[in-house]
Amino acid sequence: MSKRVILAYSGGLDTSVMVRWLTEKGYEVITYTADVGQGEELSHIPEKARQAGAVEAIVEDLKEEFAREYCLPTLRALALYEGRYPLSASLSRPLISKKLVYYAQKFKADFVAHGSTGKGNDQVRFELSVWALDPNVQVLAPVREWEFKSREEEVEYALKHSIPVKVTKEKPYSIDKNLWGVSIECGPIEDILREPPEDAFEWTTSPEKAPDEPEYVEIGFEEGLPTSINGKRYEFLSQLISELNTLAGRHGVGRIDMVENRLVGIKSREVYEAPGATLLYLAYRELLSLTTDRFTYHYFLSHVPHEYAKIVYEGLWFSPLREALDAFTSTLSKLVSGSVRIKLYKGSAVVVGRSSPNSLYVEELATYSEKDAFDHKAGAAFTKVFGLPLKVLGRVRR
Amino acid sequence: MSKRVILAYSGGLDTSVMVRWLTEKGYEVITYTADVGQGEELSHIPEKARQAGAVEAIVEDLKEEFAREYCLPTLRALALYEGRYPLSASLSRPLISKKLVYYAQKFKADFVAHGSTGKGNDQVRFELSVWALDPNVQVLAPVREWEFKSREEEVEYALKHSIPVKVTKEKPYSIDKNLWGVSIECGPIEDILREPPEDAFEWTTSPEKAPDEPEYVEIGFEEGLPTSINGKRYEFLSQLISELNTLAGRHGVGRIDMVENRLVGIKSREVYEAPGATLLYLAYRELLSLTTDRFTYHYFLSHVPHEYAKIVYEGLWFSPLREALDAFTSTLSKLVSGSVRIKLYKGSAVVVGRSSPNSLYVEELATYSEKDAFDHKAGAAFTKVFGLPLKVLGRVRR
Amino acid sequence: MSKRVILAYSGGLDTSVMVRWLTEKGYEVITYTADVGQGEELSHIPEKARQAGAVEAIVEDLKEEFAREYCLPTLRALALYEGRYPLSASLSRPLISKKLVYYAQKFKADFVAHGSTGKGNDQVRFELSVWALDPNVQVLAPVREWEFKSREEEVEYALKHSIPVKVTKEKPYSIDKNLWGVSIECGPIEDILREPPEDAFEWTTSPEKAPDEPEYVEIGFEEGLPTSINGKRYEFLSQLISELNTLAGRHGVGRIDMVENRLVGIKSREVYEAPGATLLYLAYRELLSLTTDRFTYHYFLSHVPHEYAKIVYEGLWFSPLREALDAFTSTLSKLVSGSVRIKLYKGSAVVVGRSSPNSLYVEELATYSEKDAFDHKAGAAFTKVFGLPLKVLGRVRR
Amino acid sequence: MSKRVILAYSGGLDTSVMVRWLTEKGYEVITYTADVGQGEELSHIPEKARQAGAVEAIVEDLKEEFAREYCLPTLRALALYEGRYPLSASLSRPLISKKLVYYAQKFKADFVAHGSTGKGNDQVRFELSVWALDPNVQVLAPVREWEFKSREEEVEYALKHSIPVKVTKEKPYSIDKNLWGVSIECGPIEDILREPPEDAFEWTTSPEKAPDEPEYVEIGFEEGLPTSINGKRYEFLSQLISELNTLAGRHGVGRIDMVENRLVGIKSREVYEAPGATLLYLAYRELLSLTTDRFTYHYFLSHVPHEYAKIVYEGLWFSPLREALDAFTSTLSKLVSGSVRIKLYKGSAVVVGRSSPNSLYVEELATYSEKDAFDHKAGAAFTKVFGLPLKVLGRVRR
Repeated sequence: MSKRVILAYSGGLDTSVMVRWLTEKGYEVITYTADVGQGEELSHIPEKARQAGAVEAIVEDLKEEFAREYCLPTLRALALYEGRYPLSASLSRPLISKKLVYYAQKFKADFVAHGSTGKGNDQVRFELSVWALDPNVQVLAPVREWEFKSREEEVEYALKHSIPVKVTKEKPYSIDKNLWGVSIECGPIEDILREPPEDAFEWTTSPEKAPDEPEYVEIGFEEGLPTSINGKRYEFLSQLISELNTLAGRHGVGRIDMVENRLVGIKSREVYEAPGATLLYLAYRELLSLTTDRFTYHYFLSHVPHEYAKIVYEGLWFSPLREALDAFTSTLSKLVSGSVRIKLYKGSAVVVGRSSPNSLYVEELATYSEKDAFDHKAGAAFTKVFGLPLKVLGRVRR
Repeated sequence: MSKRVILAYSGGLDTSVMVRWLTEKGYEVITYTADVGQGEELSHIPEKARQAGAVEAIVEDLKEEFAREYCLPTLRALALYEGRYPLSASLSRPLISKKLVYYAQKFKADFVAHGSTGKGNDQVRFELSVWALDPNVQVLAPVREWEFKSREEEVEYALKHSIPVKVTKEKPYSIDKNLWGVSIECGPIEDILREPPEDAFEWTTSPEKAPDEPEYVEIGFEEGLPTSINGKRYEFLSQLISELNTLAGRHGVGRIDMVENRLVGIKSREVYEAPGATLLYLAYRELLSLTTDRFTYHYFLSHVPHEYAKIVYEGLWFSPLREALDAFTSTLSKLVSGSVRIKLYKGSAVVVGRSSPNSLYVEELATYSEKDAFDHKAGAAFTKVFGLPLKVLGRVRR
Repeated sequence: MSKRVILAYSGGLDTSVMVRWLTEKGYEVITYTADVGQGEELSHIPEKARQAGAVEAIVEDLKEEFAREYCLPTLRALALYEGRYPLSASLSRPLISKKLVYYAQKFKADFVAHGSTGKGNDQVRFELSVWALDPNVQVLAPVREWEFKSREEEVEYALKHSIPVKVTKEKPYSIDKNLWGVSIECGPIEDILREPPEDAFEWTTSPEKAPDEPEYVEIGFEEGLPTSINGKRYEFLSQLISELNTLAGRHGVGRIDMVENRLVGIKSREVYEAPGATLLYLAYRELLSLTTDRFTYHYFLSHVPHEYAKIVYEGLWFSPLREALDAFTSTLSKLVSGSVRIKLYKGSAVVVGRSSPNSLYVEELATYSEKDAFDHKAGAAFTKVFGLPLKVLGRVRR
Repeated sequence: MSKRVILAYSGGLDTSVMVRWLTEKGYEVITYTADVGQGEELSHIPEKARQAGAVEAIVEDLKEEFAREYCLPTLRALALYEGRYPLSASLSRPLISKKLVYYAQKFKADFVAHGSTGKGNDQVRFELSVWALDPNVQVLAPVREWEFKSREEEVEYALKHSIPVKVTKEKPYSIDKNLWGVSIECGPIEDILREPPEDAFEWTTSPEKAPDEPEYVEIGFEEGLPTSINGKRYEFLSQLISELNTLAGRHGVGRIDMVENRLVGIKSREVYEAPGATLLYLAYRELLSLTTDRFTYHYFLSHVPHEYAKIVYEGLWFSPLREALDAFTSTLSKLVSGSVRIKLYKGSAVVVGRSSPNSLYVEELATYSEKDAFDHKAGAAFTKVFGLPLKVLGRVRR
């Protein structure tokens, strides 16, 4: 068995130390770094990886693949974990895992490695994804077993092995970023009584400091694909999302503060920023609601968003279930064309107008004006038949 | 069969004309008017009813009964119709129906009557509630069958019969109000492309005109019952709700704008204001999430809010299902004690702190600091066992 | 508007009288009769229709279309109404409606007509299907409005208009048959205290009179399609189903006796025979369970069979929801290959063996013999992490 | 910390060896043995435990507590794991755990112990139950860590320490029994292609050898409690269940053969016998369906049986969720009075008659005879309103 390993590499302290640590354990380390829209410069990554001891360093731009294959299906499911979190970090893990497996097979490496801890969700997402794609590939998670007990010990180890360490004082937060959002935990955030400090946020202006004038944004969709902002078409979905992040972030939109249940049985306080995703969820829901009938929309609401979010959150991306749910939501997404106008103001985003060629809203049926086309007498008969079970029940009860 | 009827009477044009119309059809009309927190003066109602021809006019204060028996169970289910509407108008109908049946039995009336149309949800709510409680009582809905084709014809009829008509120019909206919220429809709102005009709103300041400084409000709960605001205890839940309506309304919080599916098969655009309910839902959800385990909370989210809302919306209040769901949510509500701090600002309400004697958040388990009490090695084994199905699947797939 | 109508025509008394009745009302009647596997001779139908006054009589063999496009998707959803009824009659209605619309368009008829009553489910299935496919086509349901109050009056009318009437004494049951099963109602069956009389059954031997020796049948599937019985391949699914009806019917398998909830608010006692469907459901469930992982199978069980059955039962076949659910189940059905052995004996059918190239059953993991490959120590850690929420809860409770 | 331990003791080889093994590790062992209806003589247990080294041996009759507090709520939820297994073994674990905790507290023992392995579900059920009730009690599971690799090694150890060993040749099966059913695994059953051998079954006659005449049994319920068989009242639910086990077992009723998903990620083939439970589920379902309205029954079917079964199967008995679901089902169970007649014959059990004072079946509404009281014209209007969404959709599609 070759001791070659493909390591998911961020360039930070943990994974840099990990390159060295694995090398010392006898592994030949190839690093893998993906641009999933985290908004960081990656050109220096290969050099950094090699300095730490990597024999090879791969850097790839996955932004569009991430947007189309991971964010978009999640949007179409309107998936929100525990009703709130649009799953940013949960979505990049399976994509990165897929690439780790690809390069493991290409470079005939028997191992892949990630930098996640033993109490988080990410270990589960990485490992399940790898196993589902290639159960012969083994997954290493050095953080779960190595000897370092604190950041200080890691820094000491780094210095000893000439691994460059950023000396700037770090924020006390643990942060994960990608196109779909920012996840912030640790430090002062662990005090659930306390409002998250302003310095915790990366992409959103504080509502208080946001512009004093509202801004309107109109998002266009074609068959379930977001294609335009204020009439301007975007060829790349990743660029459209990025633009919405900027627009909504400026108005303080997309902050989420929650105490959530990790898969590993603990509750943790998490703060998220997802300005673009927030707008896209609002807009998609509005159009889906407008273009699907009552039966379809109610089934969707009851059976899809919560469950899809759980699947993604819990690392089951590469399961038949996720594929089957995508087939379900893709069928409905064909109806989702049209545009939605959203008002952004001081931290809030509100839908104020919607239109669709597939709209099932018929003003002549809905109106109480003289255009009314609904048969009111049918309403009485409908009520009579619909309510029959309760009438029979009422009779039995007496 | 006596031709006595108990009529749900608002004092408006429709139901005033209805008193007379029913009288002409040979019915003896007793009006019934409830104070469910609509915030209107009711002292003149009896005189008005008698002027229109009623032989008796009953006025009752149901605010606290409405708050405790109808709003509170709905809050405990976190019920939102189509994920958004906290069901204000849907909730007052069953309560009023219950009273209509009570007085029908008391006054030996074989009929009750309501002022709802044949294309709305309210006819269903009224009629199903009455039938479930007493299937021998017959329900009249004059609007579904009378001859008037417009407001003008009703006014003419009113003037002819000396029924007082307010001559002030009315708003073009149809509005229903109670403690739990305001429902606004018709007129310019029927244009779904257009933002609701400011004059449509009754209880909420426009976010743009709301105070420039955020305000923090802390809501206290004891075993699922909201009991205090900013440390001040409220004996009456209805007063607590009313106070929250004022507080949140001032900051423009609680506006909802949606195109929803009526039970009778049409989509209609509705605008709601529910400032107090909005805060209570946020706070209740936060505490429920904090005090229930992952299994319980996920089941709840997946099976209760959507379905409970549908039941209420569709008029099934007096069904064994609603009673059974109340038994379910009441069991969990015993855990819901503690307090939640919410920040109100320019149209948005955000939870920024939470605490509970039953909190399951354990900082020593959640933290990444040196206080960490979680067994990281167990994480690896957990992942191994949890992911086994995908690993076997991966093997089969190859 | 032309007064041409396409009438769903069975050749029985009701629809024969209906041809004449519609003709007298000024309609030009074209009859449409489908062979959906009801097992009745249809060659005399055109003559009979013309005798009653039809200008044209269409007869079509839809057995294979019915099997592939209607029965198969329902099987893949394991849809059972109220957990029991495999939906035979509910499935033929949308197919017939589709053909009625097709011929209405072809013959430029503005009307279609069916023979269902006003208190059953079939009117809903016919009308919703037609409206979904072409809302411009109008649906006539003469039974809901004509003047006949009893079978005797219809017979009298028939004789008067020289419409041939079978003079044999009819069974007291109302019976609907197709490839997927037989539905029996009325007469002695309306007494829910009483066991259905033997003469009610059409396709199944009484268990007491079934063979005294068990018979084993092996059904083979390829990617979710049943393809063989005891090793013999069937090109036509309809023939495979028909063969299973014979096999299982001989052993008294597939009888269902239930009091069910009709969509129109009443409970009715129904007796069904579905021998072939019963075997296929057993076999499909067994293979689906064997080839899908825990997460997928549990989601499926919880969200699909009950809801799909409701959709079909309530006439929503031509809805985006049914299409989306088919996309879901089709994705999973690709895994469903292999074979299932079923033992038939005296009214019962039991799966006694199963195998699949996609089987996720791994004896080395499951066994308690020395071949055991499971890591038992991981079990302890898994339990520790999985049970953490209850442990924290236990701590709070004390 | 005292090293006293309460051990769940069956008297078999594993737990007898465990007494000694724990003693050698320095623990003072108190054994606990419950009669949960497994149908075995327990009078010799204390002596056997002491011979193995226990300082104290407790034996308790829990049959009625087990029936009322564990089987009955599960019946009321109609809980079947993966749609089939009525959860016998899963139900006794939480009850035994509760008693272990009770005696641990009483005898000031810091430990409890069980004999389950690391790859089964029982470890999870024991440990989660103990932790939920008293997280300070520690749970030992010697089988997961001891040195014995085979039954032979255990026997050798037993003989060395004068622990009595049954020398009779054992069946190759692992069997768990209680009032609610028998669970059989291992040996030839691990071959999923093969029909379970007849010698695997404990309580049921083979259908082929069952009586040649059918037998009818009538089960009576009062407010959700089974109270009589063929008119004979039972004061003790455990005796009623036991009697049904005998009755149904004689006719070969209640065998289940399935490949199921264990919580720990593997599929295993399990054979169950649950003759009494099978009849009670059939009867309870029939009455619940008869006495609840369509809305209530459909919600129940969709949201309760599968989920409740999962909770029980996965060891979450002592969770707020199980308590809340019990509150739900208890509310409905008040309606479940009446009686159900079941026909037993050669392996099958079929409901053939049902009656209830709360029956919602109204023959005058259901009948197609001249007694018909349903308003057929209302059916047309109902269909029109109910189908409106599909009609609008049809219009948009064209």
